[in-house]
Amino acid sequence: MSEVINTLEGWYCLHDFRAIDWNAWKSLTASERGRAEDELYGLLRRYQDTEDAKQGSTAFFSIVGQKADFVFMHLRETLDELNELETEFNKTIFAQVTVPTYSYVSVVELGGYMAKPGTDPMQDPDILARLKPTLPKAKHICFYPMNKRREGNDNWYMLSAEERRNFMRGHGMIGRNYAGKVKQIISGSIGLDDWEWGVTLFAEDPLQFKKIVHEMRFDETSARFGEFGDFYVGNLLNQEKMAAMLKL
Amino acid sequence: MSEVINTLEGWYCLHDFRAIDWNAWKSLTASERGRAEDELYGLLRRYQDTEDAKQGSTAFFSIVGQKADFVFMHLRETLDELNELETEFNKTIFAQVTVPTYSYVSVVELGGYMAKPGTDPMQDPDILARLKPTLPKAKHICFYPMNKRREGNDNWYMLSAEERRNFMRGHGMIGRNYAGKVKQIISGSIGLDDWEWGVTLFAEDPLQFKKIVHEMRFDETSARFGEFGDFYVGNLLNQEKMAAMLKL
Amino acid sequence: MSEVINTLEGWYCLHDFRAIDWNAWKSLTASERGRAEDELYGLLRRYQDTEDAKQGSTAFFSIVGQKADFVFMHLRETLDELNELETEFNKTIFAQVTVPTYSYVSVVELGGYMAKPGTDPMQDPDILARLKPTLPKAKHICFYPMNKRREGNDNWYMLSAEERRNFMRGHGMIGRNYAGKVKQIISGSIGLDDWEWGVTLFAEDPLQFKKIVHEMRFDETSARFGEFGDFYVGNLLNQEKMAAMLKL
Amino acid sequence: MSEVINTLEGWYCLHDFRAIDWNAWKSLTASERGRAEDELYGLLRRYQDTEDAKQGSTAFFSIVGQKADFVFMHLRETLDELNELETEFNKTIFAQVTVPTYSYVSVVELGGYMAKPGTDPMQDPDILARLKPTLPKAKHICFYPMNKRREGNDNWYMLSAEERRNFMRGHGMIGRNYAGKVKQIISGSIGLDDWEWGVTLFAEDPLQFKKIVHEMRFDETSARFGEFGDFYVGNLLNQEKMAAMLKL
Amino acid sequence: MSEVINTLEGWYCLHDFRAIDWNAWKSLTASERGRAEDELYGLLRRYQDTEDAKQGSTAFFSIVGQKADFVFMHLRETLDELNELETEFNKTIFAQVTVPTYSYVSVVELGGYMAKPGTDPMQDPDILARLKPTLPKAKHICFYPMNKRREGNDNWYMLSAEERRNFMRGHGMIGRNYAGKVKQIISGSIGLDDWEWGVTLFAEDPLQFKKIVHEMRFDETSARFGEFGDFYVGNLLNQEKMAAMLKL
Repeated sequence: MSEVINTLEGWYCLHDFRAIDWNAWKSLTASERGRAEDELYGLLRRYQDTEDAKQGSTAFFSIVGQKADFVFMHLRETLDELNELETEFNKTIFAQVTVPTYSYVSVVELGGYMAKPGTDPMQDPDILARLKPTLPKAKHICFYPMNKRREGNDNWYMLSAEERRNFMRGHGMIGRNYAGKVKQIISGSIGLDDWEWGVTLFAEDPLQFKKIVHEMRFDETSARFGEFGDFYVGNLLNQEKMAAMLKL
Repeated sequence: MSEVINTLEGWYCLHDFRAIDWNAWKSLTASERGRAEDELYGLLRRYQDTEDAKQGSTAFFSIVGQKADFVFMHLRETLDELNELETEFNKTIFAQVTVPTYSYVSVVELGGYMAKPGTDPMQDPDILARLKPTLPKAKHICFYPMNKRREGNDNWYMLSAEERRNFMRGHGMIGRNYAGKVKQIISGSIGLDDWEWGVTLFAEDPLQFKKIVHEMRFDETSARFGEFGDFYVGNLLNQEKMAAMLKL
Repeated sequence: MSEVINTLEGWYCLHDFRAIDWNAWKSLTASERGRAEDELYGLLRRYQDTEDAKQGSTAFFSIVGQKADFVFMHLRETLDELNELETEFNKTIFAQVTVPTYSYVSVVELGGYMAKPGTDPMQDPDILARLKPTLPKAKHICFYPMNKRREGNDNWYMLSAEERRNFMRGHGMIGRNYAGKVKQIISGSIGLDDWEWGVTLFAEDPLQFKKIVHEMRFDETSARFGEFGDFYVGNLLNQEKMAAMLKL
Repeated sequence: MSEVINTLEGWYCLHDFRAIDWNAWKSLTASERGRAEDELYGLLRRYQDTEDAKQGSTAFFSIVGQKADFVFMHLRETLDELNELETEFNKTIFAQVTVPTYSYVSVVELGGYMAKPGTDPMQDPDILARLKPTLPKAKHICFYPMNKRREGNDNWYMLSAEERRNFMRGHGMIGRNYAGKVKQIISGSIGLDDWEWGVTLFAEDPLQFKKIVHEMRFDETSARFGEFGDFYVGNLLNQEKMAAMLKL
Repeated sequence: MSEVINTLEGWYCLHDFRAIDWNAWKSLTASERGRAEDELYGLLRRYQDTEDAKQGSTAFFSIVGQKADFVFMHLRETLDELNELETEFNKTIFAQVTVPTYSYVSVVELGGYMAKPGTDPMQDPDILARLKPTLPKAKHICFYPMNKRREGNDNWYMLSAEERRNFMRGHGMIGRNYAGKVKQIISGSIGLDDWEWGVTLFAEDPLQFKKIVHEMRFDETSARFGEFGDFYVGNLLNQEKMAAMLKL
């Protein structure tokens, strides 16, 4: 129960995955495509303005494979702002040629397991920076949702607080071995979406996604208690790269 | 078995989740959109009239993420009325630009576990108010369906009545800690829909959804016996907010 | 094995759930809608003629929620007749504005568990009436498919015949408590469709669906061995009610 | 391992289930429908020619319920021929008004469990007739895919060869009780499709499908180790019956 | 943990399965179809050029059954190149008449279990050839994704490194029995896609797919720990065969 109390939450998070309907895109006139791109790049600039003003952060990546063509990962102060971002995008010309494929609602979270006793973590600028982060412009992104298992003898929620703390300590040590190689954002989604957590990883070398997730799988916390949803992996986008992708 | 007998039921409940087909909405003329909105707001007023007459209640919220754009949660005296509300909506112009994404049929329920011995709960105005409630106009909604597990040693329905009562007592105490922060409507759906219960939460602060569901998950009732479906979370809508959402 | 031999089968059964494509319905001219309704009500009369001639029976109900708008439950002597009913409906104008959403193929069944020793049940008019029933015109319908579980220690098919008989006896006694309130048709679908049985309940008060299924769930037969599919619940339709539903 | 060596394979098998898009069929002109039917019946004749030449066999049945309207079950010497049959059908006018709903790729198989020691089964005309069979023109078909379970103590693949042989012997004896009533084709699909085997049953009386599958379910081989996919059941088609089905 | 360190990775891999929308293909003019084919065959030549330059490799096969009509299996040095191949294909005329049906993202992998002590495997030309292979032009392909199970007593990730090594040794010996008959490419997808590995098999005789997967299933590594996704099987394509498939 102390874990519950000690968990800290920051910005709300919406992962918004979409595919491009290429037939629809190609059926637009060059002039319509031009206006669609202008409007889209205008949105990207406004997302950047919000980020510069420390009011939120948005990551924009392509997705490899058929699950989606791109993802917006939006961090904002409220659920209402996330809803407005969706509606604003849905009204654009570009949205007309996209198809929603998956989304995830969560809130950036720091597990109480890491809180140092005797401190007020919300006064710690380092912790605030982790709860309301500027998302890295790394070359690659990896997203997956996960649960802690509740099956027979492998029931995470029936463990004592101390057992869970010990499990998480070992788990965290693996993560620390990837410092500088993988940047990890954990967002909690119990009561908000279908899994308990969303994990978003950023790296310059996508092989590090495979290495960290593989190594953690041998850790008892994941081996016995981790249940994983679908994995999405992709490459950093910006206006220039998006323009190249959309050029016919 | 006494639990079965002691369970009290009130109004039938339909959660009706729908997405907006933005391409279809944009393809309407301004005049058609105007008529669509007028018709929709007319429905909203009639739902309010029903609520004012204590003949039912309707909540109207947007949904964050791609699962839906909005939900109507209708409470009415009969299944026939719920069916008529569906048909009435389906005939509107606005319905033409929406896509059904999920629905849930249930009936507001009070578990007999909470009934005080020696009283007729149906004579209790407080209990009637809980069985036929006016849904709160809170800023946020959370909905999820759930089952009690029946697997190996974790089989809720093989427990004795006393064991179940003890489990529910601890569970209820967590809920009471959130009094004033989270308003909870439990609706039973055994024999009516695919899960055994629907849980609808209302709160001013959506973080409270995460906190209460997370804290309950460590309670043995949920940890060992709770199975959860998809979670929907959203923001209060009204005519003004809907008009802003639909404005092109 | 004696259970297998003792099971009795009557009419084949097709549950045919369909949604109305309201945009398509509204796009028809008034004259086309008129012809579509005439044709549909002609079918309803022919179904009634078949029922009057004791050659089969058809129930017609609306469905609450998004799973379907209505269901035909057809009982006929052969699978070929069920197939012809499908094809006949598919060729109508009204079928053009409907979308199939779910179907179930089974055969009305009486478990041998209930057969009295020393009698030939097929000579018993009461049993024949149960195997080839005229479906009740009750106000409400509930349908769900189910399996007997085969998992670890909860494997129905590894029990002895006597154990199964004892389990079913207790189960049947709960059913008898609902005599006059719930009419139940069991249809077997092993080798015919994806689950082992289909259960169709009829009642004047839909709360009885919740009560009987809930009470049975505490019975060991369901608690340990019952696996349940999706539940469909609805309201009695006839020409007049259908005309009201379809009126624009 | 001896089982693996002793399994014999014959013709490759494609079950190709399709639904008719009745709106599209009705939107064709009478002349287009005529050409579509001529082309389809031409295919049926070519399938018959292949069967007469003992180069393969094709069964053609309607399917009851919404899962499909009809199925082609093709047996051919190579996977390439099956692929060509698909492509040939896809290019027809009739294919334009059909929607693929399910398919299954497998190869007709005789389990080594039944091979008599000291014989070369491939020299046995009876066995060859079972590996490269002419599919029966029975009135009814039943198809379902299945696995042998690998869960906890019910792991078929961890049994010794002798244990599996004993299980299969009892299983086979049930099958023999249905000789003359049910004709069974087992096709293996490990490495070819999503389940380990496909089972296709043919019978004059579809109740025999229910009886044999039900009786086998009490056999320990199925009770503990059988996992079953979706069941498809249908009625024999030929040019005359198909013409009646398609007549508007 | 030593396994993790010892795993070697080579080229990234994208399996891109697509169905042909035959109605759309037939609705193109002969001239449009000609341009679509020219463009497609131009892509095939560029894939061959990349392969000749040892910068990657692409396999092109038809798929039997309804899961897809064809698959491109692309190996490239980076995820960015795979993304560009997708986008390039999506912009073609031919892509307009195809529908994505499944994809898989992974990286060619050699398990450390096979590494000989005291050698630097990345200096071994044989190992490099396996990590950055030219895909065989075999007559048949088989693809399936898989996991190592983590359930109760069958939890691969809770075994000691030595136990896993012993299991894999027996597993590898079965594979060696198929040398010359089946060519196997293992690609790791932990952190990249929904399963832990993708397995791609190539053979002249597709029966070998069934034999090797079946024989391995009796091996304890698969019997207790293997979880398998959907299987795709197909036939080698090239410009000539594709032209025959597309000819109307």
